[in-house]
Amino acid sequence: MTSATPRVRDLSESELLAQIFPQLPRGGATILGPGDDCAIVRAPDGRVVISTDVLVEGRHFRRDWSQGYDVGWRAAMANLADIAAMGAVPTSVVVALVVPGDLEAAWVVDLARGLGDACGTYDVGVVGGDLSGGDTVVVSVTVHGDLEGRAPVPRSGARPGDVVAHAGVRGWSAAGLALLSAGAATDAPSALLAGFLRPDPPVRAGRAAGVAGATAMLDVSDGLVLDAGRIAQASDVVVDLSLGALGDDVAQLADAAARVGADAATWVLTGGEDHGMLATFPADVALPVPFRAIGAVRRSDDEVRAGTVLVDGQPWHGAAGWDHFARR
Amino acid sequence: MTSATPRVRDLSESELLAQIFPQLPRGGATILGPGDDCAIVRAPDGRVVISTDVLVEGRHFRRDWSQGYDVGWRAAMANLADIAAMGAVPTSVVVALVVPGDLEAAWVVDLARGLGDACGTYDVGVVGGDLSGGDTVVVSVTVHGDLEGRAPVPRSGARPGDVVAHAGVRGWSAAGLALLSAGAATDAPSALLAGFLRPDPPVRAGRAAGVAGATAMLDVSDGLVLDAGRIAQASDVVVDLSLGALGDDVAQLADAAARVGADAATWVLTGGEDHGMLATFPADVALPVPFRAIGAVRRSDDEVRAGTVLVDGQPWHGAAGWDHFARR
Repeated sequence: MTSATPRVRDLSESELLAQIFPQLPRGGATILGPGDDCAIVRAPDGRVVISTDVLVEGRHFRRDWSQGYDVGWRAAMANLADIAAMGAVPTSVVVALVVPGDLEAAWVVDLARGLGDACGTYDVGVVGGDLSGGDTVVVSVTVHGDLEGRAPVPRSGARPGDVVAHAGVRGWSAAGLALLSAGAATDAPSALLAGFLRPDPPVRAGRAAGVAGATAMLDVSDGLVLDAGRIAQASDVVVDLSLGALGDDVAQLADAAARVGADAATWVLTGGEDHGMLATFPADVALPVPFRAIGAVRRSDDEVRAGTVLVDGQPWHGAAGWDHFARR
Repeated sequence: MTSATPRVRDLSESELLAQIFPQLPRGGATILGPGDDCAIVRAPDGRVVISTDVLVEGRHFRRDWSQGYDVGWRAAMANLADIAAMGAVPTSVVVALVVPGDLEAAWVVDLARGLGDACGTYDVGVVGGDLSGGDTVVVSVTVHGDLEGRAPVPRSGARPGDVVAHAGVRGWSAAGLALLSAGAATDAPSALLAGFLRPDPPVRAGRAAGVAGATAMLDVSDGLVLDAGRIAQASDVVVDLSLGALGDDVAQLADAAARVGADAATWVLTGGEDHGMLATFPADVALPVPFRAIGAVRRSDDEVRAGTVLVDGQPWHGAAGWDHFARR
C-alpha cells in the first residue's frame, strides 16, 4: 500500500523511473536516450571526452543540509566542469544512483530534477542510468563532451611567462560549508550557502579558454593552491599566485569568515569544490570573459623547484587543500 | 604507521591510486588516459554508445563470497555486455569506486586487477575513475563503445517470423548463486560458481550479430523470459521460446538443481546476470557463432497480446525474473 509520503520501497523500479524520466533533458547531441541497453550520443569530433565523479552521503553531502535537488545539481555541475576544464563542450551524462529503501521517493525525484536542470542549462542530455538499493545515497555521474576539432587543454601545457587566470567564484563553497558546519546558516548570505549546496561553475568559460589558446587548465576541485600545484607539477614549472589579485574575494568573504572565526584568505586559497576554471594563457592573449589574472607561471630554479606554488613570491605554509583519504 | 595488512585508511589517495593504475589496461582506442580532468577516447564512428551499471555490496555481491577480483571482473563484464547488445564494440570504461576505510587495500587492488583483466580481454581501456570513502563498497562502471558505422541493434526491431537466438550460458549465474546461498559451494561445479562470481559473456557475439543483421538484441540481465518480454514489448510482437531448444541447458543444470531442491528449467528461463546475448534474426540469416536458435517471433492476435512471452506456445506461469525494487 502506498503511504502519504511514499518511500522508495513503496514503488517498483519502473514506477520510480516513470517519475524520474520526465525530469531529465534529452540534450541536443542525443541520438538514443534511456530505455535500451545503451544510449547513443553524437561525437562529431571523432573523439569523446569522458570524466566521472561520485558523491557519497555523509562524505560529500548531508541530507539535513542538502535537498535532493541540491545533490543532483551539484553532481551534474562537478562533472560538467571537468569537461569544460579540457576546453570541451559537454554533451551527455549517465547516472548511477544508489538509494535506501526508506528514502522518500520525492527526494529521489527532486535529485533527478536538480540533475536535469543543471544539465538542461547547457543542453546536455541525461541519456541513461542505473538504480539500485543500498544503505546510503551514492550518486555517480559520468559526463561526456566534444572538443569541436580543437586540441584538448591538458594540465601539462603551462609555460614560463604564461598568465595564470581563473573564472568563477573562489572560496564560496568552503565558506558555505563552514557556515553550515557552525550552525550559522540561518542568517548567512544565501549566495555563500548556495556556493556549497548548489555550485554554479562557469562551464562555458572552459570552451572559451580553449578557443582563446589556454596552455593548461583544470577545474578547482580541491583548492586553488593544491590544484595550481597540479598544473605546476604536470607542466614542470612554478606557479606564483597573487594574493593582491584575490583581494576582492578575500574582502567579500571577510564578514562570513569573522562570524565563524575562519580566515577568508585561507578559504580563497584552499577552499575546494567551487569548480572554477584555473587556466594558463600566453601573456599576449586577451583573457576571455570571465577569466581574471591571478598569477604568473615561472621557470623553476635552484631555489624553487618545479611543481611549487608560491603566493606573492613566497612559499605557502597553510594547508594546501583536500586529500580524500588523508589521515585526519 | 602501515600495518602488516594495510587498510584503505592507512594509505593516502595517491598511494592507493599508485597501486591501482598498473592494473588497468590502456586500451587501443585511448587517446588520453587517467591523470587529467578527463580522458579522451576515439569515437571514429562519430557516435558513442554509452551504458552504466552499479554493483552494491550486500545487494549484488557479498564479500564473503566474492573476491575483489570477482567484483571487478563482474562489474566490467556486465557493462561490456551492454555495449555488445547494441551490436557495438566496447572501447573504454571509467569507474567510480566507494570503499570503506577499514577495507584491506589489497582487496581494492584485486578489484582493479579483475576489472582490468576483463577489459584487457577486449582491448578496452580503463581510462578514468573516482575514488571515495563510504560505508559499503559500491562499484559504478560506465562503458563506451563504437558502432563501426553500423546501425545500432535496438530492442524494438523484432518482426514476426524472426528467429529468436541466444549466445552464452543460460542459468549458470542463478545456479551458482543458489549453490552459494545453500552453502553447497565446496563440492559444486566450479563453472557454475564462476557463472555467478565471474560471468564471461560472449562480448564479441554482439558485434557478430550486428554484422549478420540482427533485428533486435539485448543482454540477459534479468532472465530469459523477462528480457525476451522486453524485446516483445518494444517490438510489439510475441516471443515464443522453445524449452526443447533449451533442453541441453536444463540437463546440464539438473544435478546442481537437485542438490539444492531447485528447478533447472526455472534457472534457465528466469535466471539473471548471465549477460548472454538474446537477439532476433530474419529467418534466412545464418546465425553467427555462437548463437543458437531458442524460439520464434510471432504476430500478436486476439488470444495473445503483443509483449507476451510464451514457452512452447503456452503462457509462462513461473516467476518472470528480477525486479530490483519489487516488494518481497
